[in-house]
Amino acid sequence: MSERLVVIGGDATGMSAASQARRMKDASALEIVVFERGGFTSYSACGIPYWVGGHVAERDALIARTPEEHRSREIDLRLYTEVTEIDVDAGRVRYRERETGASTWMPYDHLVIATGARPVRPPLPGIDAQGVHGVQTLDDGQALLGTLEQARGNRAVVVGAGYIGVEMAEALIQRGYDVTMVNRGPEPMSTLDPDMGALVREAMCGMGIKVVGDAEVAELRTAEDGRVAAVVTDAAEYPADVVVLGIGVHPETELARAAGLPLGQHGGLRTDLAMRVRGHENIWAGGDCVEVLDLVSGRERHIPLGTHANKHGQIIGANIGGGYAIFPGVVGTAVSKVCELEVARTGLREKDAQAAGLQYVTVTVEATNRAGYYPDAAPMTVKMLAERLTGRLLGAQIVGREGAGKRVDIAAVALTARMTVEQMTMLDLGYAPPFSPVWDPVLVAARKAVTAVRERR
Amino acid sequence: MSERLVVIGGDATGMSAASQARRMKDASALEIVVFERGGFTSYSACGIPYWVGGHVAERDALIARTPEEHRSREIDLRLYTEVTEIDVDAGRVRYRERETGASTWMPYDHLVIATGARPVRPPLPGIDAQGVHGVQTLDDGQALLGTLEQARGNRAVVVGAGYIGVEMAEALIQRGYDVTMVNRGPEPMSTLDPDMGALVREAMCGMGIKVVGDAEVAELRTAEDGRVAAVVTDAAEYPADVVVLGIGVHPETELARAAGLPLGQHGGLRTDLAMRVRGHENIWAGGDCVEVLDLVSGRERHIPLGTHANKHGQIIGANIGGGYAIFPGVVGTAVSKVCELEVARTGLREKDAQAAGLQYVTVTVEATNRAGYYPDAAPMTVKMLAERLTGRLLGAQIVGREGAGKRVDIAAVALTARMTVEQMTMLDLGYAPPFSPVWDPVLVAARKAVTAVRERR
Repeated sequence: MSERLVVIGGDATGMSAASQARRMKDASALEIVVFERGGFTSYSACGIPYWVGGHVAERDALIARTPEEHRSREIDLRLYTEVTEIDVDAGRVRYRERETGASTWMPYDHLVIATGARPVRPPLPGIDAQGVHGVQTLDDGQALLGTLEQARGNRAVVVGAGYIGVEMAEALIQRGYDVTMVNRGPEPMSTLDPDMGALVREAMCGMGIKVVGDAEVAELRTAEDGRVAAVVTDAAEYPADVVVLGIGVHPETELARAAGLPLGQHGGLRTDLAMRVRGHENIWAGGDCVEVLDLVSGRERHIPLGTHANKHGQIIGANIGGGYAIFPGVVGTAVSKVCELEVARTGLREKDAQAAGLQYVTVTVEATNRAGYYPDAAPMTVKMLAERLTGRLLGAQIVGREGAGKRVDIAAVALTARMTVEQMTMLDLGYAPPFSPVWDPVLVAARKAVTAVRERR
Repeated sequence: MSERLVVIGGDATGMSAASQARRMKDASALEIVVFERGGFTSYSACGIPYWVGGHVAERDALIARTPEEHRSREIDLRLYTEVTEIDVDAGRVRYRERETGASTWMPYDHLVIATGARPVRPPLPGIDAQGVHGVQTLDDGQALLGTLEQARGNRAVVVGAGYIGVEMAEALIQRGYDVTMVNRGPEPMSTLDPDMGALVREAMCGMGIKVVGDAEVAELRTAEDGRVAAVVTDAAEYPADVVVLGIGVHPETELARAAGLPLGQHGGLRTDLAMRVRGHENIWAGGDCVEVLDLVSGRERHIPLGTHANKHGQIIGANIGGGYAIFPGVVGTAVSKVCELEVARTGLREKDAQAAGLQYVTVTVEATNRAGYYPDAAPMTVKMLAERLTGRLLGAQIVGREGAGKRVDIAAVALTARMTVEQMTMLDLGYAPPFSPVWDPVLVAARKAVTAVRERR
């Protein structure tokens, strides 16, 4: 007897779940229906800044798998079709075809909620003016490119200084814009401690980007023709021919909330380790609409990131397909770049450690990506947090040039393994002059952290 | 009452030990004497290929700390002074000043043996001809540069295809030489499995390097003027204006052997975890003259590598200085490059696993260093070994372009933590399109390894 899997959302989690389930069960055993309210599947939203910046020539390059490819695998994919209601008790969803407006119920045996996240869009005067853009979807990217082609001037203001903000600042610089980045916090990249964020600010200023911190946007001033003209903060006004919003996202969980499904403090769905919505045997959720366990702090977090979304989808698909897989949690690794500057972090910032009740020491070291005598040896700064008394690694942040960013993986694996900084000093890492000094920068930081831990004992 | 530390050898281990001991005890508590038979201290032998290749302009750039700097820290450094005998029972060493030939005994309270390694130099006809060079010391490098400046032609033959061999091939290519690399094994880089070594060979051939495998050198043919003219193997003859030997090194332990100190099967000194020579309370050894514990196989290995030598020195110095530090062992990580090709390995090769009595599965995957749509996304091949039944990671080998080499650190830390490939699939690694596909290549390999482990259960 065939069962039906219904998936809400056709991006990373949804399509990974559908594909993995299909690999494990053929169409005679499992019918798979995916509802996607937009027109694209399996695309890399993380790639949008590089498309806008001109590094990626075409929108379609960001699409990992097209609707046709999915359909060829016997996945019944319904584009431009929005699920408007989940009826948990009856085990059915109501969906509406955008073209016809027709609304229909469909029963499910398994349901996957992969509704993603929606960008924060504060109700400011002028927020809907022409020339104000989010960069969450491919349609957003296309619209922004349209504005850039027609813009009357070359002044861009990016609101927000997180990953999307700094990546969009890079994209706009590369398109020849004068870029101002306006940020609520004191320093860009609030996913770093402020002392490390300051390094990002300094580097961005060196690239000609104007970085404005501690600024609250009050209004987007609009010209008479309806186009945006300036970003007005509590302290100043920044003329703008285009405005990009990168102020973060919220889990898209209105459907789930209306259905009475459990949400956490960040508004994301709460799941068990198998990515099953808590308390619901046959409802699963993953990606940007769920909260995940932070293995270092023991708390839930909302981390909208493609790599987690893909893992979640694969786990959900395996479990629905009769296999077994779990998502143990995250350590909070992220990496980004602004032109030549690489920025990475994993684990806890100081304020996260404080909030978790952890006592800690911090150290910061300067080192180089290669042996000092090797050409193009470039500086990098590594900050490390270790627990007081135990010396357990709690977090690492790295800002530097080539080779800085992915070094965070060393700390990410060490965090997962709950290593102490003392253990880390003896890690057998790859060494050769073009790749590292004889003491890798991460080891240099670990050595200094060992001393700091001993002093605080 | 002051004690005396005598150190034999003034490179990485010896000077790190001396410096660390000095940091912990001042000259009133500890006299430190270092005997170095050459004229340099604390230099990077690993950097010699880049100096020869022209990446590093000057010899002195490879010197991390000069004799004067060490002496300014109250280290009594005797250059051109060779220790000729260790008298363990009396606790003294005999040293000879090379200039005067004078021979003297000096008692020690603590002795550090940091005599390094000596290059293999088979007793072949012609091995001492002009134009035949090792690249072990700064003097070797200077002599080779002298030959290159005077060479009559541009044909270079590199004998050996390990790290030094491939790095010297790169150096000579960059100096405009026609390079032939002659190797005893079937493929270059015998620290990799042959299937991965084959990828290195193919890439080197693509760079215009002639790679000859399965070749035993019989003779270095010499011209009438005493210069080398050709490398003759059992099968062919390769004309040469310069020959570079990179056929490996042996632990330099003749002094230790004569003193009755314990040597292992590779000829290196055997130490305890604190780097104390086994059975000798006040004799320490580290760097290229010792054997180290391979944490994956449980066997001893000889791994001449600056990063270990520096760690050993730091540990020895800390212990002599009254602190506590141990060297837990290695997982066998190494990284190298030939022009744009990056080559890395950690853990066990197939033959190592067999020799250790381990049953295993292997997988090999192709992936890219960046998101596929990102500019300059370049391929990389990752091979992974996992233990049968348990799925524990046993080793990883990576061959690819930019970003391939240091990715081995992910596997190196996972090996140290004894992770399974199943655990590795959920590692929270840094992801952004310029740095990685949404599934990092190491995770792709781990996923495939999980499947292989299950199939072999």
